[in-house]
Amino acid sequence: MNTIQIQSPYVIFLGDIEDKTLAKTGAGLAKWCQDDVLGQLRLPGCKVDLGLADISLDEAVANGAKSLVIGVATVGGSIHADWLPVFAKALDKGLDIVNGLHTDLATIPMLMAAQEHSAGRIINVRHVGRTLPIATGRKRTGLRLLTVGTDCAVGKKYTALELTRALNAKGIDATFRASGQTGIMIAGEGLPIDSIVSDFVSGASELLSPDNSAEHWDIIEGQGSLFNPSFSAVSMGLLHGSQPDAFILCHDIARERISTCPDYPIPDLQACIQLHLDCARIVNPQVRCVGVSVNTSSLDPGKRRDYLTRLQAELELPCVDPLIDGCEAFVTLIAKQFHQSDTGKAHAES
Amino acid sequence: MNTIQIQSPYVIFLGDIEDKTLAKTGAGLAKWCQDDVLGQLRLPGCKVDLGLADISLDEAVANGAKSLVIGVATVGGSIHADWLPVFAKALDKGLDIVNGLHTDLATIPMLMAAQEHSAGRIINVRHVGRTLPIATGRKRTGLRLLTVGTDCAVGKKYTALELTRALNAKGIDATFRASGQTGIMIAGEGLPIDSIVSDFVSGASELLSPDNSAEHWDIIEGQGSLFNPSFSAVSMGLLHGSQPDAFILCHDIARERISTCPDYPIPDLQACIQLHLDCARIVNPQVRCVGVSVNTSSLDPGKRRDYLTRLQAELELPCVDPLIDGCEAFVTLIAKQFHQSDTGKAHAES
Repeated sequence: MNTIQIQSPYVIFLGDIEDKTLAKTGAGLAKWCQDDVLGQLRLPGCKVDLGLADISLDEAVANGAKSLVIGVATVGGSIHADWLPVFAKALDKGLDIVNGLHTDLATIPMLMAAQEHSAGRIINVRHVGRTLPIATGRKRTGLRLLTVGTDCAVGKKYTALELTRALNAKGIDATFRASGQTGIMIAGEGLPIDSIVSDFVSGASELLSPDNSAEHWDIIEGQGSLFNPSFSAVSMGLLHGSQPDAFILCHDIARERISTCPDYPIPDLQACIQLHLDCARIVNPQVRCVGVSVNTSSLDPGKRRDYLTRLQAELELPCVDPLIDGCEAFVTLIAKQFHQSDTGKAHAES
Repeated sequence: MNTIQIQSPYVIFLGDIEDKTLAKTGAGLAKWCQDDVLGQLRLPGCKVDLGLADISLDEAVANGAKSLVIGVATVGGSIHADWLPVFAKALDKGLDIVNGLHTDLATIPMLMAAQEHSAGRIINVRHVGRTLPIATGRKRTGLRLLTVGTDCAVGKKYTALELTRALNAKGIDATFRASGQTGIMIAGEGLPIDSIVSDFVSGASELLSPDNSAEHWDIIEGQGSLFNPSFSAVSMGLLHGSQPDAFILCHDIARERISTCPDYPIPDLQACIQLHLDCARIVNPQVRCVGVSVNTSSLDPGKRRDYLTRLQAELELPCVDPLIDGCEAFVTLIAKQFHQSDTGKAHAES
């Protein structure tokens, strides 16, 4: 695939940050790529601990590290001056620097110079260096599921990752397809859809889930929301380029207003499913919604169960909190609707 | 707003294209900026004729030309290698090269070199030099109409320009807002929405039609189509950033398949209106469709009239070919629905 490729094993760079919420990129990697992560590299003053082994650059290189991944997301995407000598030294030692911040590290003179004499590369995950095609709308082989949302940051990446794991556990072949910077670091490849020029968003989305075997699922990480007026362009392009056979709607029950547009309420779930069906049918008339993934962390356990039971009865779809319930309910419905047996293998192998 | 200044008179470059649909930039300039255009420059093999005088570079310079405007829009914005020596020669002669394609001409070594020794500049209309904001969704004052389409290249720009002229002729204050390269060349300002990173498409679209007086119309040039899977991201961002009070659906009766996606039929007009209403209501619950603009040039006059009469009865909306009928029928409905008198002045001035 002509996407961004990242080499593991990783060292996660945490710098000197004091606030754990700034380390969500690193935390995502620690959770989803444990086997690819050698440890965390922290500078003096760092108060965040991802529960990984502390490791120096020399130790990392001795243990076969290939990439230093910047695991922090500072406000405004700024790079602290203290970090630069560390990045330069990592390049000197032949490591790639994987950067998910908006700042293009390759424009910083110290790092440009270091890169010139190094086998290591600066990989700006948000910058797509290649020429992208315009979407053709051609139907591709294989099956695709896209996670969509009532807003951004409502669990689309988490749901896609957890569903991929649950499908594979059930013997259904599935690949997580990353469309955002953290997802790309977790998967080791992908395309940062929100950073792509709008004319090429659908074309990039087509590249993200290429032709595959008939019973293989691409589980595509969604972006934004059709109902978030700031990012609906991203969501629409990803929807049309993905040509999904199925989608899961993600929702955070604590969210009352659209995150970037406080004048807008969170949409009604049934209306949200309907608009996604209407838009997705343009590229795949067979598309269906196969469930709702709800972040219920703001409810106590009794109310949580009542809410999901009511929602499930109302929508006639599996409604779960994947962090608590897992994604098995979605897998069961997918196996029933798209595969001849619940292992998902009968149709492909018979 | 960031504006691009283009110097006239123009020479329109058509290269060696064989298909008139690729010359829509040149055709738009020939129609809307007649007084600024000295002629067309065609290379051997060119099968397109805009009905302008054929002119050489030397003749153009002798007649006071200031800019060579690339009048062709190739798929994907590619530049043919044969064109480069012509552009280099034009720069040598002191002309500006006005480029509406995605490719940044200033990155092509032959042209970089030519520009260094020339008073002429390379003006890439699609490249936005400023930092754009993320959309806020905030309701703006004034009225907005967006032209949308069943596909791209079905008359959205033409309809917006003709409607702006017709509204002003009727005493209703209206401004054409250009969202594409040709429109920007015609209007002298605007933002190239399809060239903007997807995260910022809605934000740029908000900038395009800023707060205005209560009865002023921004007539916004649409881009792509929600039903064209190649460009629906552009269309969705422009729709949500525009927050239209009204839209006109544009359609070409000769078009049977989506231009860039031959597997896709042109949508049913009623379904197309409905999806635009559903998507636009997210940002403006009062939005309404005020008409259908149809390119009927493929029909003979009798059939043309029958078709439009039938369509008008079916949709209960003004249905006209603006090239033949003008846009007065839209103006009458707009005046009736949005203004107290048919001059559009009573409400604002009373």
